[in-house]
Amino acid sequence: MKQKRFILQENELPTAWYNIQADMPNKPLPPIHPATRQPLGVDDLAHIFPRECCVQELDTEHDFIPIPGEVLEKYSFYRSTPLVRAYALEEALQTPAHIYFKNESVNPLGSHKINSALAQCYYAKQEGTTNVTTETGAGQWGAALAYAARVFGLEAAVYQVKISMQQKPYRSSIMRTFGAAVTGSPSMSTRAGKDIITRDPHHPGSLGTAISEAVELATTTPNCKYTLGSVLNHVGLHQTIIGLEAEKQMAMAGEYPDVVIACFGGGSNFGGLAFPFMRHNLKDGKHTEFIAAEPDSCPKLTRGQFRYDFGDEAGYTPLLPMFTLGHTFKPANIHAGGLRYHGAGMIISQLLKDGLMRGVDIPQLESFDAGMLFARTEGIIPAPESSHAIAATIREAEKCKQTGEQKVILFNLSGHGLIDMSAYDQYLNGDLVNHRVSDDDILQTLGRVPE
Amino acid sequence: MKQKRFILQENELPTAWYNIQADMPNKPLPPIHPATRQPLGVDDLAHIFPRECCVQELDTEHDFIPIPGEVLEKYSFYRSTPLVRAYALEEALQTPAHIYFKNESVNPLGSHKINSALAQCYYAKQEGTTNVTTETGAGQWGAALAYAARVFGLEAAVYQVKISMQQKPYRSSIMRTFGAAVTGSPSMSTRAGKDIITRDPHHPGSLGTAISEAVELATTTPNCKYTLGSVLNHVGLHQTIIGLEAEKQMAMAGEYPDVVIACFGGGSNFGGLAFPFMRHNLKDGKHTEFIAAEPDSCPKLTRGQFRYDFGDEAGYTPLLPMFTLGHTFKPANIHAGGLRYHGAGMIISQLLKDGLMRGVDIPQLESFDAGMLFARTEGIIPAPESSHAIAATIREAEKCKQTGEQKVILFNLSGHGLIDMSAYDQYLNGDLVNHRVSDDDILQTLGRVPE
Repeated sequence: MKQKRFILQENELPTAWYNIQADMPNKPLPPIHPATRQPLGVDDLAHIFPRECCVQELDTEHDFIPIPGEVLEKYSFYRSTPLVRAYALEEALQTPAHIYFKNESVNPLGSHKINSALAQCYYAKQEGTTNVTTETGAGQWGAALAYAARVFGLEAAVYQVKISMQQKPYRSSIMRTFGAAVTGSPSMSTRAGKDIITRDPHHPGSLGTAISEAVELATTTPNCKYTLGSVLNHVGLHQTIIGLEAEKQMAMAGEYPDVVIACFGGGSNFGGLAFPFMRHNLKDGKHTEFIAAEPDSCPKLTRGQFRYDFGDEAGYTPLLPMFTLGHTFKPANIHAGGLRYHGAGMIISQLLKDGLMRGVDIPQLESFDAGMLFARTEGIIPAPESSHAIAATIREAEKCKQTGEQKVILFNLSGHGLIDMSAYDQYLNGDLVNHRVSDDDILQTLGRVPE
Repeated sequence: MKQKRFILQENELPTAWYNIQADMPNKPLPPIHPATRQPLGVDDLAHIFPRECCVQELDTEHDFIPIPGEVLEKYSFYRSTPLVRAYALEEALQTPAHIYFKNESVNPLGSHKINSALAQCYYAKQEGTTNVTTETGAGQWGAALAYAARVFGLEAAVYQVKISMQQKPYRSSIMRTFGAAVTGSPSMSTRAGKDIITRDPHHPGSLGTAISEAVELATTTPNCKYTLGSVLNHVGLHQTIIGLEAEKQMAMAGEYPDVVIACFGGGSNFGGLAFPFMRHNLKDGKHTEFIAAEPDSCPKLTRGQFRYDFGDEAGYTPLLPMFTLGHTFKPANIHAGGLRYHGAGMIISQLLKDGLMRGVDIPQLESFDAGMLFARTEGIIPAPESSHAIAATIREAEKCKQTGEQKVILFNLSGHGLIDMSAYDQYLNGDLVNHRVSDDDILQTLGRVPE
């Protein structure tokens, strides 16, 4: 019998995260203050985020950062996640490629987001914080944060992108089940939200609007810290547990990936899987190719510009060096809510600039075609976000079919789609369409990026 | 670090199912023909079910039945499922009991049902069947059957209980995603459905009505076999993979259960977990207690009668020896759709009669209280069905707290509740109520059981 799943025993789990900043040939540019244009230090960031996260954010020295014992203990509730050989998908594609996926959908919260939520809530708790706040799109991050806050005895307030909340009502129920307070964004509960609604009463919300509201709540509430589900360096750091496990599991399978693929919103699941393998490109002469799959409705990697820009709609965050579509970019209402973000994280942006990875943009219908094929072969209904990685994987596997190359492709199944069934319904009913954004729209919002 | 999860390697997976019929002191009474009252043999059953399933159904000789290689291969996609020590729940309850659960929610379909769906579709395929049909309540079984049919290249038609379809629309989307045709029951597509709707236009449907329709479709369609998700002996047989794994995993944890608990609809997840342990009561002098947790709105184990009765609403099935509330019993619209069935399987009914296990009935609100506590401690949102097992577990753990006994309790988390979030919403909003059935209602439907 061919082995399909590779699982680590508890004593084989990685005990440190991998910090790619230490090994990058060009370090990411620093976040800067919008007014002074001075680089921000730990103290500047620590009034918004847990301090230890800020230390990690700016750490360009240590290549491995130990995972605290209490976080490791929580990880062991669901890790390792399986590495799976997608034999049935390979067969359906008639490809000589070997396709593997890391199954991050197999945890109680259903996505990789929990890996960083546990770490951030642990650090928040350590420094005496009582409340955490955050933004969420489709709700994967919000659900993870709600659970992690509960685990460490913190109160959680979540701003969820309004359109996603309407498309996927079950996710806010999940957050409420774990005890979080959930508000649709833009809302009338913050100054930022009121400003946005006044400008555009029908604004469907975006990660940018939700971040503005959550940051405002954190900075105006005592003993409250803001947490973020992607984009920032420390979030990607926590997610490297995915790639570090996958590295050991690929070795169990006796293979090493030629291509590593993940979907791309802010970069956390991509970085989480890719960085540990990219380390061997940087240090050990490996030549793995890294592909980030973004929606063609929100194509910052393939059609954005490398600029200093705000991380949020209202301009509350520091200026971040990122491939961006402009912080006022309003993505179409695609079902992959977690990918509806205007910018890429700082590390990723530098890596992309340096040619160490590349982006591909995927139309919505292609992503659902891919997700459907994956469901009907591998039996797992993928999150619409993850389906972008599957679509990019299928493209690579079909190239192999043409060239006859037996490449080893590894992608990240970042989450399952069981809360996204209304999207599958629309697809099955033929009601889904593509939303490729026009060059004009991108130029317009890029024009509003601060010089 | 305390070990929380126990997982078997692929080469440690059980390779045979356990057939408790071989070890029962009193064998289950046979199914009989309603008109002739003669016991039915394999040939009688095989025009409805796959023949090999009928052989297994009536096998009282072989204690272990080898799992076919192709089924084992499909099992390896998601098995073993983890055995988990519920430390956080123990702590919340302040109980000296050690609580373990077998986590059957960790598979692509989200419940234990897939274990038998794969086996039944394999046997159907082996004998040249092209179509399978079935009934489903909340949709866990239907989703599993839809996927298993797809895996083995069969077409699937599913009758879903109408009220469950309305309460949980995502489950029919899941079935459609796997390619199944889904119809709400009672429907106008069968004679049985038309009869029921004519009698009661607002009939919410029950497993009994859906079985009638699916059986009618199977018997009136060439090359089509009927499959069932619970009640029958061969279904419970396939589910023993759960208990056989749990037995090995409990040994890894260095413990043996004093109490084994599962929720109860027709008996498949209960039997699946319990039978392998009950074997040691029957043969090796163990004294484990077995508790089946049913809803107090459908209490066949605690308040039903042991009688020959039909398995379905319309009276299409053979007469089965079962603890029953009467085949025309119409359960309240509780959210645990998988437990809304009027009768208990033949093996279970005999074991209950012989005092080898017992039932407890759980009010709906108690089940949701329990599910909520479990979600907030262990991080997994349980299916409303499984929450009945959790409620029974909490009762036992609280007894231990009073007596100081350090009992080892093992329960089955038969599925997750991510498709049931509308039920949690109702609970959180204070809109859920209890539905304890009255003695009069039970007497009325028992009066319609054939003499």
